[in-house]
Amino acid sequence: MNEIKPIKLKQDIKVTELVEQMKNAGFGARKIGIASDIAKKMFSEKNCTVFMGLAGAMVPAGMKQIIIDLIDNKNIDILVTTGANLTHDLIEALGDKHYQCNTWNDEELHQKGYDRIYNVLMKNEVYEKLENFFEQNWEQLNKSKNIKELIETIGNLLPENSNSVLKTCSKNKIPIYCPALTDSGIGLMIWGRIASGKKISIDAFEDMKEIIDTAWTSEKKGIIYIGGGTPKNFIQQSLQFSSGANYGIQITTDSAEGGGSSGAPLEEGKSWGKLKTNAEFVDVKCDATIALPLIFST
Amino acid sequence: MNEIKPIKLKQDIKVTELVEQMKNAGFGARKIGIASDIAKKMFSEKNCTVFMGLAGAMVPAGMKQIIIDLIDNKNIDILVTTGANLTHDLIEALGDKHYQCNTWNDEELHQKGYDRIYNVLMKNEVYEKLENFFEQNWEQLNKSKNIKELIETIGNLLPENSNSVLKTCSKNKIPIYCPALTDSGIGLMIWGRIASGKKISIDAFEDMKEIIDTAWTSEKKGIIYIGGGTPKNFIQQSLQFSSGANYGIQITTDSAEGGGSSGAPLEEGKSWGKLKTNAEFVDVKCDATIALPLIFST
Amino acid sequence: MNEIKPIKLKQDIKVTELVEQMKNAGFGARKIGIASDIAKKMFSEKNCTVFMGLAGAMVPAGMKQIIIDLIDNKNIDILVTTGANLTHDLIEALGDKHYQCNTWNDEELHQKGYDRIYNVLMKNEVYEKLENFFEQNWEQLNKSKNIKELIETIGNLLPENSNSVLKTCSKNKIPIYCPALTDSGIGLMIWGRIASGKKISIDAFEDMKEIIDTAWTSEKKGIIYIGGGTPKNFIQQSLQFSSGANYGIQITTDSAEGGGSSGAPLEEGKSWGKLKTNAEFVDVKCDATIALPLIFST
Amino acid sequence: MNEIKPIKLKQDIKVTELVEQMKNAGFGARKIGIASDIAKKMFSEKNCTVFMGLAGAMVPAGMKQIIIDLIDNKNIDILVTTGANLTHDLIEALGDKHYQCNTWNDEELHQKGYDRIYNVLMKNEVYEKLENFFEQNWEQLNKSKNIKELIETIGNLLPENSNSVLKTCSKNKIPIYCPALTDSGIGLMIWGRIASGKKISIDAFEDMKEIIDTAWTSEKKGIIYIGGGTPKNFIQQSLQFSSGANYGIQITTDSAEGGGSSGAPLEEGKSWGKLKTNAEFVDVKCDATIALPLIFST
Repeated sequence: MNEIKPIKLKQDIKVTELVEQMKNAGFGARKIGIASDIAKKMFSEKNCTVFMGLAGAMVPAGMKQIIIDLIDNKNIDILVTTGANLTHDLIEALGDKHYQCNTWNDEELHQKGYDRIYNVLMKNEVYEKLENFFEQNWEQLNKSKNIKELIETIGNLLPENSNSVLKTCSKNKIPIYCPALTDSGIGLMIWGRIASGKKISIDAFEDMKEIIDTAWTSEKKGIIYIGGGTPKNFIQQSLQFSSGANYGIQITTDSAEGGGSSGAPLEEGKSWGKLKTNAEFVDVKCDATIALPLIFST
Repeated sequence: MNEIKPIKLKQDIKVTELVEQMKNAGFGARKIGIASDIAKKMFSEKNCTVFMGLAGAMVPAGMKQIIIDLIDNKNIDILVTTGANLTHDLIEALGDKHYQCNTWNDEELHQKGYDRIYNVLMKNEVYEKLENFFEQNWEQLNKSKNIKELIETIGNLLPENSNSVLKTCSKNKIPIYCPALTDSGIGLMIWGRIASGKKISIDAFEDMKEIIDTAWTSEKKGIIYIGGGTPKNFIQQSLQFSSGANYGIQITTDSAEGGGSSGAPLEEGKSWGKLKTNAEFVDVKCDATIALPLIFST
Repeated sequence: MNEIKPIKLKQDIKVTELVEQMKNAGFGARKIGIASDIAKKMFSEKNCTVFMGLAGAMVPAGMKQIIIDLIDNKNIDILVTTGANLTHDLIEALGDKHYQCNTWNDEELHQKGYDRIYNVLMKNEVYEKLENFFEQNWEQLNKSKNIKELIETIGNLLPENSNSVLKTCSKNKIPIYCPALTDSGIGLMIWGRIASGKKISIDAFEDMKEIIDTAWTSEKKGIIYIGGGTPKNFIQQSLQFSSGANYGIQITTDSAEGGGSSGAPLEEGKSWGKLKTNAEFVDVKCDATIALPLIFST
Repeated sequence: MNEIKPIKLKQDIKVTELVEQMKNAGFGARKIGIASDIAKKMFSEKNCTVFMGLAGAMVPAGMKQIIIDLIDNKNIDILVTTGANLTHDLIEALGDKHYQCNTWNDEELHQKGYDRIYNVLMKNEVYEKLENFFEQNWEQLNKSKNIKELIETIGNLLPENSNSVLKTCSKNKIPIYCPALTDSGIGLMIWGRIASGKKISIDAFEDMKEIIDTAWTSEKKGIIYIGGGTPKNFIQQSLQFSSGANYGIQITTDSAEGGGSSGAPLEEGKSWGKLKTNAEFVDVKCDATIALPLIFST
């Protein structure tokens, strides 16, 4: 049985040193340490396919570079995310920004043309550049036959030096799945084109085949869930009837007792066969904007 | 300024009497009371279109009859839900059950063939009846061109006396939207048919047109969000650039501070124009299985 | 294995009927049902001493009548609570009120002389009547030798028809323990007298002897924790090295992962010997103002 | 309006560099950055008295060294904590340890003599050394007239090189207040002596005078609340009717909606006059074992 060792902060302590110490502390700190270890394992095993489910407005909150670097470093093999994250990533790729706010009055923000995401703001006028992007590139975009292709095409269309999740995935040939793309700004843009009489035919089910194939044929599987929702559920779904995940990290503040998928501890996946009986896994109950930089520092 | 009046329980007190009293108590109790009032208002206004976003495994948790009755009573005009809820509803419609468990060992459950959803179990063998249903009815199902039609067809195929959300919506001509149907058992069934060479062509974006049209053309709008996720986000999305919702009820245990859409207070929607400046709304922070029967009792 | 049975609301359904149905639903609803059953058991067993730990501002939130009725019905044998609850109870007993607010500006409230407790307000001027009460009754109050006696004396001093927890306990000879009375308005009043040169000598440890004796000599023990904090911890402490509690109900929204006593599931008490191995118990994760009227309806 | 800047992890990034970057991110990350800045301000202002309220089992979780270093660096002027933290600190000072566990069976732990605090264990036999300590030092301990003195005496009795909060405070003449000392192992030890006929007379209210004097006479006040409970409430209480705190940091995972003091945002204190209208403050919703090392790194 290992002793708890008090965390000792020293001048100029590195994040990796702190996380190393956290492994020997208690409560959430230890889970950060364990998650860091599990991440290293799943990233270093050559035959381990890593699925990341990314929900929550991580791009507006300044987490995109961490995701970009994980992809550039070939740590993530499959990204499943929300339409919101992709939309905000595209907005930044097109030159717009997100802004800080620490107090707010939503009626006033509305009048001034700002949309609020907790303590982050976006100008409502970003939709103009989005509109232009979809209008100008429609002939290429409308050739996509499924959501993955559509997203990949968006990535391909962005300038080579675009510092975005979309571009980085397209460069690295990492597939992005987004089962509920329709509930996002990108969805709205597609709808806008359709409403104006343009044609596009995106099959709703086609992406399933590929991700299930990947899940069923990968020798080992690692899962990283940031924030639950559809991205987690889509990956979990793919793992059902597979041999189950070998490694798992979940970062969420949702609680188990409500019974929703987002808050369900990874352990629950064992009953479904989505997680291997002998898997190494950890549930980190923490704001992802705090946990991510700790877990993925090296 | 209204006084707090202590809640007085009396022998045989009715739920409606308790909820009436809750309006004059504090903390979450008052919010239950306020939500009940707002529900009555949005249900009674003839020109108010009511959108319900239903996430969380509400059917396995025994909440389906409350939803069914709301629909049968013409209180809900649009239902947006998760593939999980529809799958569990279909499973029950096909004759299978969900079960109670108060303690659990997930490895053992896996061996015994049970899938766990917090303190609710489902036999893994339910997938057989699901398979049969999709196999036998494929010729009718594969004619659907969008997700709404596919779901409606499933509802139509169920026996007339089927006590299910799917059947009740199909009988009452209430559209069910499910943007992320792919991350569910129903999605898996479709995928299974496709994997075996069968054809179906479901457009991913088509449903957007209809729900956005409804949101933009309805004189008044009421929103009821149970549990956040894609259902909430899809409705919120439709309301953007509309005149905004007039009434709102949100029931969730997710917290605002994490920045995700599920925990975002309704107030935040004002900045986006999704909620009217003068809307009547309330955020109920409560397990939906406890809040629903209180709010919707009459 | 018991089936989940969907909750069916009918016209004029009674709270007890709803709670009975909740037992066969899932997630938090079932826990409400289980808690109601456990409460009935611990209340009906003659040789079972029931300890209630009451934290959170339950009196300002309109929950006092439920507590009063439980005491009047001889359901609670020992009450441990916070100084805040006793202070607010005394404030109401002296004729002041609490008020509802649904939106707030704390700076404005401060200027207008209102103190806020989430969505409940109290006039700051209540301290005047409190001052008078302590000033006028000092000769009787200062004879108390421990906190329990001091609280009992306050109860005795209140008019016979006073509808308060303090009076009801004093009438029913139910001891109220309040280990941290100093962090409350009543504490401030005592301090005020001492600061003006008056004398009182309240022993900090004396109450421990009595509650530990009760815990150690009671044949059976039932525990009801509303909101954690010092009240829970003081009872848990008393149970350590006893034979352990036979019945337990915990109502809190705090989570286990933070490691604090308030959010610790009752199960954890088994390792300490505070809860019997074969105890019947349930953790209800719910706003207490919603859970209390459901669990304690009869 | 400041832009959100994505956090960029680089090889060997220091904790202080990460926290600096967090200030320009969103959600909880930004709050960590803000808290770090506010801490620096309140620590560097010469005429600012810093009150720390420390709840939650921070010592068992390996956080004691961070507290010790803050005290040794003269950053904290007043410490208010729980009996549990002091008991666990004393247990370690007497040579015992806490242990890590990642899965548990509470019945088994009970049989093996381990007490569980979420994912931290303590041997039940630690009470023997505690007993000895109180038995052997009773003649010095029983001279204390109030809780502060009793705690200070314990600190004085520990060996000079004892790496403990108790010793560090006694060396640095930092007062420790613990209004609810009775609900802890130390309380049990005192009770044990009293039960065996020994005498001690600790006044319950005496400490109030001193902390209120400090709060009322300090030119500026900074408050740091870790985990709510009685420690927070005791400090808040002292600030009422003072000029209010100038700086505030709160770290908790409790939520505001339940209405309890622990989850109440600092802002609420403005209505009571406990927080200055123009105070600089931040509420960090995070597991304290993760937030503390980030906020207090230098």
